Parts: sequence; structure tokens; C-alpha cells
Amino acid sequence: MDSGKIRVGIVGATGYAGQELIRLIIGHPYAELSYLAATTDEGDVTAVLPQFQGAAVPSLEAYTKEQCKNACEAVFVALPSGVSGTVAAGLWDAGLRVVDLSGDLRLTSTDYALWYDREPVRDTYLHQSVYGLSEWNREAICAASLVANPGCYATATLLSLMPLARGGLLTENVVTVDAKSGVTGAGRSPKLANQLAELADNFFPYRVGRHQHTPEVEQALGADIKVVLTTQLLPIARGIYVSAYVPDVQASALPELRHLYHDAYAETPFVHLLSDGMVPQLKAVRGSNSCHIQLAVEERTNTLLIFAAIDNLQKGAAGQAVQNLNLMFGLDETAGLSVYGLAP
Amino acid sequence: MDSGKIRVGIVGATGYAGQELIRLIIGHPYAELSYLAATTDEGDVTAVLPQFQGAAVPSLEAYTKEQCKNACEAVFVALPSGVSGTVAAGLWDAGLRVVDLSGDLRLTSTDYALWYDREPVRDTYLHQSVYGLSEWNREAICAASLVANPGCYATATLLSLMPLARGGLLTENVVTVDAKSGVTGAGRSPKLANQLAELADNFFPYRVGRHQHTPEVEQALGADIKVVLTTQLLPIARGIYVSAYVPDVQASALPELRHLYHDAYAETPFVHLLSDGMVPQLKAVRGSNSCHIQLAVEERTNTLLIFAAIDNLQKGAAGQAVQNLNLMFGLDETAGLSVYGLAP
Amino acid sequence: MDSGKIRVGIVGATGYAGQELIRLIIGHPYAELSYLAATTDEGDVTAVLPQFQGAAVPSLEAYTKEQCKNACEAVFVALPSGVSGTVAAGLWDAGLRVVDLSGDLRLTSTDYALWYDREPVRDTYLHQSVYGLSEWNREAICAASLVANPGCYATATLLSLMPLARGGLLTENVVTVDAKSGVTGAGRSPKLANQLAELADNFFPYRVGRHQHTPEVEQALGADIKVVLTTQLLPIARGIYVSAYVPDVQASALPELRHLYHDAYAETPFVHLLSDGMVPQLKAVRGSNSCHIQLAVEERTNTLLIFAAIDNLQKGAAGQAVQNLNLMFGLDETAGLSVYGLAP
Amino acid sequence: MDSGKIRVGIVGATGYAGQELIRLIIGHPYAELSYLAATTDEGDVTAVLPQFQGAAVPSLEAYTKEQCKNACEAVFVALPSGVSGTVAAGLWDAGLRVVDLSGDLRLTSTDYALWYDREPVRDTYLHQSVYGLSEWNREAICAASLVANPGCYATATLLSLMPLARGGLLTENVVTVDAKSGVTGAGRSPKLANQLAELADNFFPYRVGRHQHTPEVEQALGADIKVVLTTQLLPIARGIYVSAYVPDVQASALPELRHLYHDAYAETPFVHLLSDGMVPQLKAVRGSNSCHIQLAVEERTNTLLIFAAIDNLQKGAAGQAVQNLNLMFGLDETAGLSVYGLAP
Repeated sequence: MDSGKIRVGIVGATGYAGQELIRLIIGHPYAELSYLAATTDEGDVTAVLPQFQGAAVPSLEAYTKEQCKNACEAVFVALPSGVSGTVAAGLWDAGLRVVDLSGDLRLTSTDYALWYDREPVRDTYLHQSVYGLSEWNREAICAASLVANPGCYATATLLSLMPLARGGLLTENVVTVDAKSGVTGAGRSPKLANQLAELADNFFPYRVGRHQHTPEVEQALGADIKVVLTTQLLPIARGIYVSAYVPDVQASALPELRHLYHDAYAETPFVHLLSDGMVPQLKAVRGSNSCHIQLAVEERTNTLLIFAAIDNLQKGAAGQAVQNLNLMFGLDETAGLSVYGLAP
Repeated sequence: MDSGKIRVGIVGATGYAGQELIRLIIGHPYAELSYLAATTDEGDVTAVLPQFQGAAVPSLEAYTKEQCKNACEAVFVALPSGVSGTVAAGLWDAGLRVVDLSGDLRLTSTDYALWYDREPVRDTYLHQSVYGLSEWNREAICAASLVANPGCYATATLLSLMPLARGGLLTENVVTVDAKSGVTGAGRSPKLANQLAELADNFFPYRVGRHQHTPEVEQALGADIKVVLTTQLLPIARGIYVSAYVPDVQASALPELRHLYHDAYAETPFVHLLSDGMVPQLKAVRGSNSCHIQLAVEERTNTLLIFAAIDNLQKGAAGQAVQNLNLMFGLDETAGLSVYGLAP
Repeated sequence: MDSGKIRVGIVGATGYAGQELIRLIIGHPYAELSYLAATTDEGDVTAVLPQFQGAAVPSLEAYTKEQCKNACEAVFVALPSGVSGTVAAGLWDAGLRVVDLSGDLRLTSTDYALWYDREPVRDTYLHQSVYGLSEWNREAICAASLVANPGCYATATLLSLMPLARGGLLTENVVTVDAKSGVTGAGRSPKLANQLAELADNFFPYRVGRHQHTPEVEQALGADIKVVLTTQLLPIARGIYVSAYVPDVQASALPELRHLYHDAYAETPFVHLLSDGMVPQLKAVRGSNSCHIQLAVEERTNTLLIFAAIDNLQKGAAGQAVQNLNLMFGLDETAGLSVYGLAP
Repeated sequence: MDSGKIRVGIVGATGYAGQELIRLIIGHPYAELSYLAATTDEGDVTAVLPQFQGAAVPSLEAYTKEQCKNACEAVFVALPSGVSGTVAAGLWDAGLRVVDLSGDLRLTSTDYALWYDREPVRDTYLHQSVYGLSEWNREAICAASLVANPGCYATATLLSLMPLARGGLLTENVVTVDAKSGVTGAGRSPKLANQLAELADNFFPYRVGRHQHTPEVEQALGADIKVVLTTQLLPIARGIYVSAYVPDVQASALPELRHLYHDAYAETPFVHLLSDGMVPQLKAVRGSNSCHIQLAVEERTNTLLIFAAIDNLQKGAAGQAVQNLNLMFGLDETAGLSVYGLAP
């Protein structure tokens, strides 16, 4: 291992985010896979994940901190919330640079206990971890060694609303966020509700009024902004689509708002405000780390509409995690990532 | 033709609503198909619509008022808006009972001109036509000979909001309606945007802020209630899902609201308020004329959430049209219709 | 319960075939649901199967022979193979008329042991049970009290090949049957491979060379005809499509073969040989009990191609089971069944 | 333009193969887009193809040979058959290295006239063009300046059968090839049959017995081998799945056949014989240029089964075209291509 590449491990390598991380790191010019741990599978990766046929990647192992530490400089921890944060904290203690993809390191202990209904990790780690919304926390991420990678719904919602929030334009508003997700967001453990026979041709909300990405969004927006977040399941594998509604915005404000968004994202490689007349499409960002955004004002009701599309496994999980790794190691932010979606 | 059954025609028989009408009337105990007209096809139905293999149905003809009038007692007109209303009016003038499935007879002439950007039919017909939202206009429909069948989005939205509106609980509110539809709602004429290669794995809004079902909803709700209606395309063939957001509703009001909805729909065969803890699913109503509704309050923001699911070709078009025919002819409201969805 | 209707029970009522049976019997003019047993769920049906909102159906119970016997005249047993046959046999012993939807009563004990790798039920039952391929075994089914309902792949394959087999035209041939199925055929128990995230946009074969419907097909064809049956999964919920290849057939024989198929199915309400130039489509039979068939000859290689489409939950399971119930009770064969598919 | 990269043009840039070519060349380390021509669109690419938001690519132009010639060293021509070959020939005459993705340069003039029912291009060009099945024609492609890129069905079929054909193991056999394709293979021009409302939940064959890839396969296999090729439409956007049946192969020959295939593809980066017990899955190759292959023998009938999966827009079109470009320019065969599929 003296390729000069960053030796990267993945704990939780066979989950859907884990699989996407494997694919991204295989194609990464400055990083290489040096360790893969999985909970349910051991041995040859291609026996479990046939898309990696022909790849020279480490075998799947049962996780041990010692092995992970020895094999890696940096590690992605993509385990279920409730387990992931503790593993991530342990590896950070051991000196690795860590990106945790779970919800365990994102909230204050109070909010975590309330929304996850579970004991949070120790405050030390919560204070150390940096929220990995790359476009809005770049400096802190560059200096971080422990990153809490944002949730998929939170990422799409925040990229839609942060220009307004930072511009002081959201005060006293309740923002309605009607969000839709592909089912890979629900994880790889078999459940009746996630069978194709149940989901095909179907659509429905879940965790109404109590989705755990709600406090994550509100915490990042700040200023006591309240969000109604409705999470709904699309009958497809990948993608998050957000339709956000902000009241009390005049149509005359639209050009200025477009400037605000344009400026906010002009220098970012992955976030794009679309031209007038276009709307974000899930398929245009599929397989890419990009986020497409559009603004409109419904004149009759003075409602600002914001639409945003991401791939939940990319910008909503593995892609943003790699983007954060790039920032942490001072690399080109786009290294190993795709800007352009796989369409059709 | 002395079966004693009502002789029913369909003008626009090969469109998606027209196809569903054929299927429903074939299975109707008190009606029979006596005339089928189509714009693009003539001759044997099964050559165009293979699902009717083996059925004894009339051949497809080019439409003439004379033939239609002679063959039928009642007729469904399911042509594109801009054409349909005129044909429907002519057949009504000729003495037939008519259900028009287009948007041509639903609005005032002012609203029609504004939202459809086209000349409305004469006011005579607009005044004569009865809005066919079966559950909320039953008496008028029973007495009508010309019915303007509601739009698919309008039906799902109105079944969600009418109990509030009639209960006087919507004043001064802007209601946000985030709606999603299967692509059969876009009609059968080939368009690039509706190709499977474009839509599969995709999701996006269209006609943002200017969907023509908006004034239809507001007119039926009355009392100057304003609705933000966002219409979005699901990558499936059938179904409409509405997620509606009403501000300023306390959680403590929920039990009373559930009573209100329960009472509103207790006697209706097709509209069901679901039990606590359940959410409407598109698949549960697919192929049926039912509408499933659920209420919830997001306590932190005092927002009432209303979810509703229908099949756009059934309760959103052909099914409700048959329900209205049943009412017009004094038949059992459910004759020829299915209450239970085709799932899985 | 003195409606004069046949009191019908379903054991295994929440599986996919069970759900379809509930829907069909609710709509049946001469039968009514009097007993529902399920392995995993008890209580209100609509809590588990929301498509039955509003239906007056018995509650789900844990199965006991005593209760089933008291409640029913006839019963569908739709449990997993290995369990179903024994339950069916017990209920038949108790005097009920029984349709078993599993593979347990279809084969000789030798073939069953070989292909199912499990103990068969006692020969008494195997000898008593009548193979329920309605169109080809009608007389025996009419006289039967214990019916082994055919497998889904077997039904589509046999409807494709029986005219040839009975016509003595298959001798010494190996027939290649390339079959594709929707995933409801794999049952309702959650499995990783059946999650939408795995199946969407996917296609692959399973049980290559050892699918248990192979001996079922060969037994019904007789005359030592051998079939290569390849079973493959489509990324959809419903449907079976069979493409069968018979070698050594001249193009000149096609008209005669069309006559043979036409005559074989001319009097049957559900099986249709399509007109020249058409091909069976899955969607044209979805939700119906119909089977569409087409023949073609590849002239360059003297290969007869036979295509057939059914809905695996209808003609491939619940629909044919109801058809067989109708035959057993001397009813109109189509009672409670749909001939026309739900399209689009 | 002195980046040192190969200046590459695409004629037919907005078709589905064209779009994939844009994406691949954007990410190619040694090539850059210097010219984009489209028939139906001009101007900004992202207005038509939103997945390229943010990309610095040439504007879409109406095609002229002069402009193309001046802008490019190499060009992909991805126009409809009947037009494409002539354009490709003209650009080759003008001195460019050309990969033509249509069927116009693949067959002898006799076969072309017969199967395409159209005038072939002049024999000069047919003789000059090299068939671009990369793994089996590598030397000729390396030396070529005009490549006829193989058809999608032909590619999957030939990769499945060439080891047998070259090994002399196919003589006197008729091989049955049951093939299934995603709908992008049917092109981007809107057609009723390709609308999502028609295709979703559907499956059916088309061009039975007369698909134009049949002679392409037989020509490459040689030795008078006859193929029955059945082409069928899957309700998905991408992918080709081939299930091939070769008669008269003993189970005892399987280990040797596995050796044969293993050796044939051991040195190729994209074609993989899977391990025992695995089957090719469409999703495992989606978005990649790979082909996964598996062999099995049905012992009871001595039938060899060969399964193969590719992405029709990659190895079946744009991917193989780039692979051929790489070979023609002496580059690493995998430059700009992905080996690993986008799953889930």
C-alpha cells in the first residue's frame, strides 16, 4: 500500500449507502479502498454485490476497531443510527478521520433523545462533530476530523432554504416541505412495506409529523424557523424531491431571490439554480452528486415555491460523504464524483 | 336493443378515460354500450384496445351527432378540452343525457377564458351544466341532464377540503395542495415527455402556478378560499395523491375534525376516512372508484395535514362519470363500479 | 347466513393469492366470504389490507379446522407448499369442497419428492385431487370435491401447448419455454431479493433448470414431452409471460395450427387466440382471468413461436381457483370474474 | 483547443445513444467534445438535456459536414439507420475517424436490402467498415478508421455465443435467443407504444421473426449457424437481457465450456463470466460498459443455457462506441468508461 492514495475504509459496506461508497472510492483518483466491514456478510464482495464483478477490493470482514484503525487513514461509517455514532466516535478517538452517515452525530443531545427516542452519544463527540452540509459549512469541514454527514431529506431541504435563511428572509414563517423519496432511503433490511409487490404503482407518506430530519433542518436554518416536513415514498429506487412552500413572498421579489440563489451557488460545482422555465427532474441528477433547484412565485397567494432534486444515495448520502472527505483532505471537491446524471 | 338496459355512448372512446368507460359499461348491470366514437381510430375495438378481446361492443366510428343521437339515451363525452364541451352541448340539445369529462363546462366563462386561454362555450350551457362532484352535489346531479364531470386533481382536492369549507373552517386561509398524478392524466397523444424512457425513475412538477384545476377547486370551495395547487408527475400510469396543508389548526381540534369528516362521508359508498394510524395508499384505490382520506395535525406548527388517494381514471374521471350516470338515472350509485382496489 | 349464497372460506387470506380471492368473492354474485384465516395476522382485514376499506368481511382468525368446517361449504387453501396440502386434505376429509392453490396436490408422490424435496401428502389425496386446468379438465373438475389448482407458470405454459399436445404434434420434441413473471408470484414474505430497491430496473432468472412447475407441465402434456422451463423475474407486481419455442414446424403449417388453437378455445370465455398481427400484452390481461395467445413461425429455422400472457394472481392463481369453484358448483364459469384487463 | 485531447464530435447528439456519448466524453480523460449536431434541437444543450446542467459543452448545431470536419478528429454518428451510414461515409471520406452507431455499415448489401428493406450505402463503405465488437475484433478495430458499431441485441447475443462459435461447437444447431430490452433501444421519437402509460406493468415481443439484428448475429457467428431471435420490451429504460438455448449439450461438458468462456474473456476488462451459482442481473451492469455472462446445462434435455446482461446504451451502443474509439486511438480500452454498474 504505497500507492500514495488515501487508504479509506467503509463500515457498513453492504448497505445502500455503503455500496455507493464502494463504487465512488473505486473510481476515486486519490483514494483507495483498504477496509470493508459489514454486519451481515463476510468474504467476497461480488458474491453479495454483483455490480462489482472484476473489481479488486478488500474482502468483507466483521468489524473490529483494531483492524479498521490499522488499515485506514479515513473511514466512512454507514451503520444504522444508534450504532453508527458510537463506532464513528471510537474510530475518531483512535486517530482516524471519520465521516459518519447516520443521524447520531447531527443533533444536540436533547433533540436526539426526543426525535430518535434513544440515548445520544456523549456530548464530547456531538461537540466535536462538524455538520457536513458541504456548500454551507465548507470551512469547518475542511478543518474537521469528525463529520456528521447530513440526512438525505435534510440535504435537499437545506439546499433549498439556506439562501433564504442566511439572507434573513425566513423569520416568523412556517415553511411547508412536501418531500418524496426513493425507497433506498429506507435501508436494505427486508420489510414487507418495501417489497416491490407493495410499492410498485403506489405512493404514501410515512412518519407523518415525526420524521427525524425535521430538527436537523430547523437546527441548521436557525432563528426559530419552523418546518413542516412530510416524507413520502416514491415507487422508485433513488432520488429525493422537495417541494417547499414559503408564505408571504411577492412575485416582484422573484428576480432578487433568483440573484440570491444564483450568488449562493455560483461557485459550487454541484448545486445549480436552473434557468427560467425549467424544473428540477429526479432523473437529471440520478447517479450524480448534483442538486438542481428552481424558484417560482404563485402570485395569487404570494407563495414562494422552491423545488429541489437530488439523488438520495449521492448528495443525500455517499456522494456528499466523499465530497466531505475531499474537503477534509484538501482535495478537489469533485474528485471521484459525477456532476452529470445518468439519464435516460 | 330491447334488453331494457340504458343505451350508452362514448365519444372519445379510445382515450384513457374512454377506455375505462368502455370497461365499466361492459360490466354495468343496467347499461350497455350502444355507440363508440373515436377521433383517430375506426373499426374493431380490440385491434386498438387489446384488453377487450372477446367483448361484444360496437365498432369505433367517426363521430356524427346524428348517429350518436339515434343510438343512445345517454352519452359520455371524453374529448380534449376545447372540443368536448361543444360536442356535449350539441348532444344535450339533441335530447340526450350527457356527462362531459372535459374542463369545458365546469367554470364561469370568465374563469374559463383566463385559465384555459380559449373561448368558452355559450353561457346557456355553462348555466345548465351541473358540477358532478357526486358526494357534494348529489341532489342537483340526480335532477340534471348535463353534468360537468370534475377534474381529477379537483376531485381529490375537493373531497379533502369540502368538509372544512362547508363547516366554515377555511376562511382567510391559503391552503397548500401538493398533488401528484400518474401519467394517464396527461392523455394518450404521444409526447416526448410522457415516454417511459423519460418518466421512469423520474418525478417533477408541471404547469406550476397555472394548472386549470385551481379555479375549479376554488369555485367549489367558495368563500374566497385560495388554493396553491402544485401538480406533479409520478412515474406510474394511474393515481392521484393529494397532500394538503391547512394552517392554524390546533392539535386539540383533531377529534372534532375527524367527526366532521366521518359524518360527511358516513353514508357514501366510495369515500372513506381511514382509521387512526393508517395513511391512504394509491394502490389501495387503484381500479376502484374509492377515495381514501386521512387527517393529522403537526402540533409544533399547528398545521392540519390532509392526505387523499384516488385512481385518476376512476373517481378522477370515468368512475365518477358512471357514478353520475347512475345518479341521473336513479340507479344504485355503485352499479357497475368497484369499491375495492386492485392490490397488489 | 341465509342469503342462499355459497359460504366460502379462505385459509391463507393475506397472501397475495388470498387477497385476490377476497376481492373476487366480495364481488361474486353467488358466493360470500364466511371465514378468513391467516397465519401472521388476526382481526380487522382492513388494518392489514387497506384496499378492503368499507367491506363487510369476516375478521382474520388463526386457522382451526373446526371453525373452518362450521363456517363454510367450500374453501380455498392458499398456504405455502408443504403446509397447504395437508390442511386442504383435512378439510376435504371434513366434507368441504376444497380448492388447494399450492403445489402439494398436483404431482405424483415420486415427482413431488424429487422436485419439492419434501414428503408428499398421502397418495389417497393425490389420487382424489383433480388437476384444475379449467379449460382442459372441465368435466373432471365439475365432478370434483378436491381440486389442485395449477401453478402460475404451468397454467400459461399449458394453455400455450395443450392444443399441440392433444393434437399429437409434440412427440419427440423438446419445447423451450422462456417464462417471465411479476414478483407477486414469489409470495408476501419479505426477502431482500424482492425489495423494490433490488428489483426495480432489474431482470434475472431464478431456479434455473429446477423450477417445480416443470414436472407439472410435463405431466399434463404427457407422451414423454420434455420442457426446458426458464423462470425469470420482471420488475412488476403482476403477470406471467410465456414465449415457447417448438422446433421442426413448417411455416406452411401455420394456418392449420391457428385452426387447431381457435377450435380448442372457441367456446372458452377466458382464453383467446389473437388475430394475425397482434401479440399478447401483459397489461391487456391484468386484473382479468383471461389468457391471450398468439402463434408465429420463424420460417428460416422452422420454429413455431407461441406467446401467452396471463395475470399470475388471476388465471395463474385466484381467478382460476374461482373459475374452478364455479365449475364445482355448476355455476356460470365466469361468475365473479373479469374477462377484460385493467389497462392502461 | 490545444488541450492535447482528441477533438470528438457527435452527430445525433440528443438521441438516447447521443446523450450517453456526451456524458461519456465529458468524463473522458483523453477526449473532449468539440462538435454536437442534432436534427431536432439547436442551441444550449442543457435546455434539452437537463442532466448536463453546468457542463461546458458545445452548442447543438444543425449538421454540416464542413463544420464537423473542421471541428473534429473523430466523430460518432448516431442517426437513424438509413441516414446515419451516409453521413458516416461522408465524414470518413473527409478524413475523420468515424464510429457509426446505426445498422447501415454492418451487413452485406444483400442482407441490408433484405432486412432493412432499404438501399444500402455503396459497397466501398461496407467493405471499409470494421465490425466493432470490441472483444472479438480488436486488432481490426485498432487499425480501422471506420467502425460499424454493433447493435444492442447483437452485442449481447454475440458475447454469449462467440466462444462456442469460434470453438466450432455450434455447427448444425439452431440457437434460440430470447432477448429482452429496455425501451431506450426504441429511440427518442415519441410513439404511442412507448408512452409510460402503455408500457408500465407491460411486456410483449415486437418484430417477431424479422428483427434486423438477426443477420448481424448470424454473419458474425459464421458457419451457417441459424439464430431464432425474439426481441421483447421490458417496462424499464435501460438494459438488454439475453437467454440463449443451445441444444444437444451434455451436462458433463459444462466444466469445459466454463473454461472456454473463462479463457475467452479472461483478459477483457468488461466481459465477465460469473461464478457458479450466480446469474447476470440487469441492474449490476446498468450505467456500465460491462457484460455479465453465466452458463448452465438443463440435464434432462441436454440444453445449454446462456444468460447475458448488458446496458443497451453502454455496451449496446455508446459505451462500446467509446471503447472502439479508445482502440482506434491506441488508448487504454477502459478510458472514460465504467466497469461497475449503478446499483441499486
